Amino acid sequence: MKILVINAGSSSMKYQLIDMDTEQFIAKGNCERIGAGNGIVSYKTADGYSTEQDIDLPDHTAAFRAVMNFLTTGDHKVISDFSEIAAIGHRFAHGGPTFVAPALIDDDTLREIDKTTPLMPLHTPAQIKAVRAAQAVFGREKPMVGVFDTSFITSSAPEYAYRYAIPYEYGDKYGIRKYGFHGTSHRFVSLRINEILGRNDMKVVICHLGNGSSISAVQSGRGIDESLGLSGNGGIMMGTRSGAIDAAIPGTLMKNLGLTITEVTELLNKKSGLLGVSGVSSDMRDIHKAAEEGNARAKLAIQMLTYQIKKCIGEYAAALGGLDCVCFTGGIGENDWIVREKSCEGLEFLGIDFDSDKNRNFRGEGCMTKPGSKVQVWVIPTNEELLIARDTRDLVFGAK
Amino acid sequence: MKILVINAGSSSMKYQLIDMDTEQFIAKGNCERIGAGNGIVSYKTADGYSTEQDIDLPDHTAAFRAVMNFLTTGDHKVISDFSEIAAIGHRFAHGGPTFVAPALIDDDTLREIDKTTPLMPLHTPAQIKAVRAAQAVFGREKPMVGVFDTSFITSSAPEYAYRYAIPYEYGDKYGIRKYGFHGTSHRFVSLRINEILGRNDMKVVICHLGNGSSISAVQSGRGIDESLGLSGNGGIMMGTRSGAIDAAIPGTLMKNLGLTITEVTELLNKKSGLLGVSGVSSDMRDIHKAAEEGNARAKLAIQMLTYQIKKCIGEYAAALGGLDCVCFTGGIGENDWIVREKSCEGLEFLGIDFDSDKNRNFRGEGCMTKPGSKVQVWVIPTNEELLIARDTRDLVFGAK
Repeated sequence: MKILVINAGSSSMKYQLIDMDTEQFIAKGNCERIGAGNGIVSYKTADGYSTEQDIDLPDHTAAFRAVMNFLTTGDHKVISDFSEIAAIGHRFAHGGPTFVAPALIDDDTLREIDKTTPLMPLHTPAQIKAVRAAQAVFGREKPMVGVFDTSFITSSAPEYAYRYAIPYEYGDKYGIRKYGFHGTSHRFVSLRINEILGRNDMKVVICHLGNGSSISAVQSGRGIDESLGLSGNGGIMMGTRSGAIDAAIPGTLMKNLGLTITEVTELLNKKSGLLGVSGVSSDMRDIHKAAEEGNARAKLAIQMLTYQIKKCIGEYAAALGGLDCVCFTGGIGENDWIVREKSCEGLEFLGIDFDSDKNRNFRGEGCMTKPGSKVQVWVIPTNEELLIARDTRDLVFGAK
Repeated sequence: MKILVINAGSSSMKYQLIDMDTEQFIAKGNCERIGAGNGIVSYKTADGYSTEQDIDLPDHTAAFRAVMNFLTTGDHKVISDFSEIAAIGHRFAHGGPTFVAPALIDDDTLREIDKTTPLMPLHTPAQIKAVRAAQAVFGREKPMVGVFDTSFITSSAPEYAYRYAIPYEYGDKYGIRKYGFHGTSHRFVSLRINEILGRNDMKVVICHLGNGSSISAVQSGRGIDESLGLSGNGGIMMGTRSGAIDAAIPGTLMKNLGLTITEVTELLNKKSGLLGVSGVSSDMRDIHKAAEEGNARAKLAIQMLTYQIKKCIGEYAAALGGLDCVCFTGGIGENDWIVREKSCEGLEFLGIDFDSDKNRNFRGEGCMTKPGSKVQVWVIPTNEELLIARDTRDLVFGAK
């Protein structure tokens, strides 16, 4: 069985065709600059072929047509026609408080999703457009499923964890609560660590560290708390985002800089975090390089980030009432051994016996603690597309 | 030796005359409605006498004259004249980044303190006025010392802990960093627990829980991190304050409610926290009563508060790389056994063997964990005035 997974942004659309028997991708790529002129579509197959072409992409429908053209024609086609695609899974960044699980897509579902637009005004309309375009290209009878990043937290976090201490009525009326972000990644890693260790009763802290970063507390596979809440800017510092800050800071910046709240929010989202502290870059690779060359602010940025990760691990261990495992995933979590090591430094008291030798330069999937370590630390490469494909298969054709 | 301790607010001035041989108060009270008409001065002596009188208080000088009148005249006077007062200690809520230790007050000091006014615009001018008034009443030759709440954190927190991940230059230029609050209380409790346990090398988390609440991480008596940072609204939820929130919330509330940032900041300071969640009160006693009567939102407020305290204990244990002791202080920390118990629930994995029987209804100073508990939990009644008096004596007359 083959499932097509779609991850649409406001002007881009990533796609991946997955073979559910092997759980490997068959082909994947990205459509960029949709509706913006000078469209580009990339296409890569499992056997190593890769291309990128300039294609006019006035809308998401044109993007789907371009993708289908790559998949079904020419020397590097991977399927003969789209009847081979059993179903399509669509990633939604936000499902509001309503969508606590993947949902079969029909008109009612789309209407309900549309109601959550104010919570994610840039992404949700584009994701709905992608569904409509897929219906236009593949026909409305092609089964489609929406998978919601937020459901990992909205399905299982207790009210005392997801509520902010603002006036109660505003929380409900304006949907101001923790929804969590990167939930599909957290859920993938949670399922994977349970599979690896053959247990489903663990207390796990998952550190999804990338350009956006979130840390979750997971009890028996259920997300009970997360460092990102209402928006993409909470919890720990990120590439360009401040993370959670003193409630007085937005107002203080507005006053001192003569900016509007929109401008300050932008500043806290785009010019803060690792970039704002280091003054070098939002990319950890550049920051490590600068730190090695003696740049004091780059060193500070690394110290701040790893200190905040370490504190959050402790925070969520307390939330869980104990700790069995810490997982690192995401661009930084998977590839940055220095961040992993410094984030675990000093956590011996929690039962972490970190294996610095093994961790150094480690990539792939593996355990970073020594045999017998009471708490294990793992690196788990995330695979959100695979989980979306599995959810789609399970919902359309019944659990495997 | 007798030291007078002054704690001035914008329209009030608390005073306490302390006998440094016994470290007990001789007399204390409060001057209220300074400059606001209908002034009131209370006066209480160590032998149990207590009175409250309407006295015209046009300014802080009048307040000092009223206090001196109580102290030196009538049947309940405690000193014959003000030559008996060896020195005066003034509490300052904010010392900016400059005052990392208590300081002898002279004109230069006052000028430096005045520079920090933008960080505490309501309190600092009143505290400076109180010093000027004391100089007018007692003469400029009377030794005076300023003790700064912020010095507990500014003296010893590492840069990676006190910096926010906003653009680096704004942190320095506008003084946007963690200063900590209630530092004199945290420092008192830290000194006291070291004295009780006969150690000064401990990793301690101090929970100062009152109408305002802050939690500190203390290594060997030095404050390395605190949940309150730039303003009085960070960290955990409080009586009417939200605590640290997602950076998008102020903007979201402005948009939805049509409010200015000043109004939203006010809402997050005055109508949020325990009051906003419970809808009942900002006072834990009222909230417990409502919860016992079945009020779901009151129960939720208690769950949220204790969950947040618990998480912060875990966070700071990680920051410290271990934990020897947790101390509770402040109005709630000293008197609310339910909050203490629920905050420690589930922290057995950190080595806390909580003694629920002893904790129930406990007041005073004592250990709430069972003998042999790896991590001890203590209740330590705070005494900021005594610490200010000690600092004043030490700075004026040399350490005892």
